Amino acid sequence: MAERLGLDVDWVEGDWRRGVDPDKVAAVLRSDPSIAAVMVVHNETSTGVTSRIAEIREAIDAAGSEALLLVDTISSLGSIDYRHDEWGVDVTVGCSQKGLMLPAGLGFNAVSDKARAASERARLPRSYWDWKPILEANQAGFWPYTSATNLLYGLREAIAMLREEGLENVYARHRRHAEATRAAVHAWGLEVLCADEREYSASLTAVVVPDGVDADEVRRVILERFDMSLGAGLGKLAGRVFRIGHLGDFNDLMLAGTLCGVEMGLRIAGVPVGDGVEAALGRLALEPVAV
Amino acid sequence: MAERLGLDVDWVEGDWRRGVDPDKVAAVLRSDPSIAAVMVVHNETSTGVTSRIAEIREAIDAAGSEALLLVDTISSLGSIDYRHDEWGVDVTVGCSQKGLMLPAGLGFNAVSDKARAASERARLPRSYWDWKPILEANQAGFWPYTSATNLLYGLREAIAMLREEGLENVYARHRRHAEATRAAVHAWGLEVLCADEREYSASLTAVVVPDGVDADEVRRVILERFDMSLGAGLGKLAGRVFRIGHLGDFNDLMLAGTLCGVEMGLRIAGVPVGDGVEAALGRLALEPVAV
Amino acid sequence: MAERLGLDVDWVEGDWRRGVDPDKVAAVLRSDPSIAAVMVVHNETSTGVTSRIAEIREAIDAAGSEALLLVDTISSLGSIDYRHDEWGVDVTVGCSQKGLMLPAGLGFNAVSDKARAASERARLPRSYWDWKPILEANQAGFWPYTSATNLLYGLREAIAMLREEGLENVYARHRRHAEATRAAVHAWGLEVLCADEREYSASLTAVVVPDGVDADEVRRVILERFDMSLGAGLGKLAGRVFRIGHLGDFNDLMLAGTLCGVEMGLRIAGVPVGDGVEAALGRLALEPVAV
Amino acid sequence: MAERLGLDVDWVEGDWRRGVDPDKVAAVLRSDPSIAAVMVVHNETSTGVTSRIAEIREAIDAAGSEALLLVDTISSLGSIDYRHDEWGVDVTVGCSQKGLMLPAGLGFNAVSDKARAASERARLPRSYWDWKPILEANQAGFWPYTSATNLLYGLREAIAMLREEGLENVYARHRRHAEATRAAVHAWGLEVLCADEREYSASLTAVVVPDGVDADEVRRVILERFDMSLGAGLGKLAGRVFRIGHLGDFNDLMLAGTLCGVEMGLRIAGVPVGDGVEAALGRLALEPVAV
Repeated sequence: MAERLGLDVDWVEGDWRRGVDPDKVAAVLRSDPSIAAVMVVHNETSTGVTSRIAEIREAIDAAGSEALLLVDTISSLGSIDYRHDEWGVDVTVGCSQKGLMLPAGLGFNAVSDKARAASERARLPRSYWDWKPILEANQAGFWPYTSATNLLYGLREAIAMLREEGLENVYARHRRHAEATRAAVHAWGLEVLCADEREYSASLTAVVVPDGVDADEVRRVILERFDMSLGAGLGKLAGRVFRIGHLGDFNDLMLAGTLCGVEMGLRIAGVPVGDGVEAALGRLALEPVAV
Repeated sequence: MAERLGLDVDWVEGDWRRGVDPDKVAAVLRSDPSIAAVMVVHNETSTGVTSRIAEIREAIDAAGSEALLLVDTISSLGSIDYRHDEWGVDVTVGCSQKGLMLPAGLGFNAVSDKARAASERARLPRSYWDWKPILEANQAGFWPYTSATNLLYGLREAIAMLREEGLENVYARHRRHAEATRAAVHAWGLEVLCADEREYSASLTAVVVPDGVDADEVRRVILERFDMSLGAGLGKLAGRVFRIGHLGDFNDLMLAGTLCGVEMGLRIAGVPVGDGVEAALGRLALEPVAV
Repeated sequence: MAERLGLDVDWVEGDWRRGVDPDKVAAVLRSDPSIAAVMVVHNETSTGVTSRIAEIREAIDAAGSEALLLVDTISSLGSIDYRHDEWGVDVTVGCSQKGLMLPAGLGFNAVSDKARAASERARLPRSYWDWKPILEANQAGFWPYTSATNLLYGLREAIAMLREEGLENVYARHRRHAEATRAAVHAWGLEVLCADEREYSASLTAVVVPDGVDADEVRRVILERFDMSLGAGLGKLAGRVFRIGHLGDFNDLMLAGTLCGVEMGLRIAGVPVGDGVEAALGRLALEPVAV
Repeated sequence: MAERLGLDVDWVEGDWRRGVDPDKVAAVLRSDPSIAAVMVVHNETSTGVTSRIAEIREAIDAAGSEALLLVDTISSLGSIDYRHDEWGVDVTVGCSQKGLMLPAGLGFNAVSDKARAASERARLPRSYWDWKPILEANQAGFWPYTSATNLLYGLREAIAMLREEGLENVYARHRRHAEATRAAVHAWGLEVLCADEREYSASLTAVVVPDGVDADEVRRVILERFDMSLGAGLGKLAGRVFRIGHLGDFNDLMLAGTLCGVEMGLRIAGVPVGDGVEAALGRLALEPVAV
């Protein structure tokens, strides 16, 4: 995509079981001080790995770089703690259809002054995605194009729900569900894809199936027998992992039912697994600590 | 209630863990040939016991009685096999808010010719509940009072859903969920209230808690911790049982999540229980037999 | 109906174009001091006539009667000013599906202490309609039967809407729409059924068609051509009147569209009429007076 | 916008009261055979003028040009007759939120083979708007990005509604409403902005207010008094016109109510106008001709 956009882009090689390595970012920036921006996905939906944005910002600064920090929060916004201002992010991109519990249809950009200035200097052709007419129209409370009014009403309610529960409690709820999910995965005798415990995603967990098992066949069985759709492994993980989502409007018993479906599906698909549900219930039965 | 209505009513003593005993019905009718009607609840919502209506009809006939058979199907209609005509029922009373998956607001009466004739002879004052103006208005497709039109649209859709799945499959689904629930109850080391396996309800299961345990406290814990509301024991069962509903629009993973909540709640409330969820999953993982 | 209930009931002959005559009520009560209750419909839906409840109460009192005053507010509650306590009504009956803007399904009773005492002395058999179990359950915030929970949420919102607009403004809005409707009727050269201007209904207007015209044919044309359903004349008014509703969630342009449909329908049905819409718009264009 | 996209664009000067002139298009194309594409808005939402697409295509062909024909059908799709294939259009752009009666959120492109081929040769950077990944994913029934599934369900229903009515009847309904609206405008003594009767829009009508009248003040009065929002004049028409929409799910009485609101608003705003509603009703009362 970047190539098609005529941009000069470096993909920093990574490890699909780990997040973006701040040291590597720093090293690349030191080797090329002309780099204009660093793009990171906060929570990688295809692997269940959450990168450490604050540390990446520190690494950029420590490298003496002027690069903008651009962060995709598609599957973390409203589910995993995130701090645009405090962490010094320049552009944050979010959406309505995950942690904000709405249909797809709204995208959000949080933009630093530095990013706005860069945008004005940039020469990449743009039209619909241009911030300028949006910012101008916003001055008067408007949007330059037809807006998805019904989703804005939904957004107002979604934000009210998050505030009523308290953002800290929302984040703690998802972390707790992720812990219970990992307890199940371990009791099943399977592996969580994410290899660094600092980077476990609170909004989804990717599970590695044993060699010789086709993860997509497991998914097919679960869909057919229990009407539950799990995420597929993407790219080089195709057939090797399935993904369990636990974000948005989700509670203990929804997670319990989900894990029951996965456990039965694994067995039906011929994968011998231990009692993961029991392990997860042990975690869920612990008193949630009020924040 | 019957007394307030000025009716001469005999309550035939029963056993709360069993359904109506056809032999007892026959005996009462033989002892008093003037009895005009026998009233039975098909599926007793407070105990999870399903009476054997066809056998009761046979008992009435065998006793040489002319009594009408009146049956309440509130918590069975659309969830448990029931045959108004085939079983020779005179009046069947049903509702919208359980197996038909709608809000409360519609009541249904199926009425035999014999019951209509009896109604015309009856002298109990009546107005809103009178069949006569309803039957007259129905001739022209009308209802004599303001009708709950929105629920009629819902009813059309509910019936379409039941037909799409196939009534036999719907009934089998609920029976299967009841079996899995009983498997969990037994593995927990608890008792199902219903004492006769021919009378296990397919739409709900009442569970007896051990002596010294307050079932309402278990229910309170589960509501508070898992936002799940279980049915209370009523009358002389208050505090002695809780009830698990598995009727209407309900699937395997909803049941699994429900049983997980009950199991965690029992443990949190200090009731030591075995691994009921595992037992239930064992049952649910068996291939459902297509009817 | 009253006869079927075994009650001794006198229908005081009236005039379908006028409300209940307080003087007549007083005369009947003076002639028979044993009369236990006076039943009045506040706003007669079939004629568009609103009886003067306060004056009827005064007449009852002036006659020295102890009779209860029972009032039906089905088509006035929330649309026309009504004061249960201030007017000394003993039992007020209301519903959800008109001025409260909800589906059919909720009924309301406001009951004076005197009516409750009478209810306890009464010997008419009753069950579902009995206030006693309802009042008892209400003490603890409950309802003795399955309640229509979804409608209670709707009711909360409906009441919030009425309060936000202000009840006085709601009543003024309906009076204004009734005035505009009568302006149209007069300009069409037709007659409003209600003959006493003190008794014009604010929630609906019944219109008399000229001799030789079939009101039901006019209604049929309007339904077919403009997908708008008008109320039929009932009983002895069948074919002689049609009824225009202007209650509930209704605004100026809905009324304007409604009157346009009636005007076009009358012409299509061959009834030569003047420019009623123009007359109504003249009234609607006047500044509404804030209360 | 085109300039920002780095495109070499000619705006062919036009007349805001008329559609695109096919002869002018032909003349421009003859003068510059290198022109790659002609972009036309089918129904101009800001003026209520519908351009004659088939004639423009013929003009392009007659000029011997190879230019692509790109057409915006935002406010005509599903309301005004349009034929992508038959008229030889290369790219048609449509949306969900007008004639298809849905919320904003879906955009549609109909693309000729010639346009696809041009797209592959084009060098303008692109990403989200690129047809290639969409066409590839579509082969397997997918969409390369998160799709607005709820709107797709809505679309299925919208298309079913249009088919049930019959597209020819839908188009006739809007034409009829446009005629009735123009009848009202003329009776008010005002002018329709569109100056060519071949180009009257069936989905909206822009009305010119007399000199000295501020159209935005008229709109403000109507919004405040009747809770009805009319379209504003845009660009050089600001304050000079207001726009009446009559597209989508719209019927005779909605139009009648709309015109009543406009007529009252004009008078309240001090614009002396004739009886436009009466004129419109005269048109609407004529029997609609079944197609």
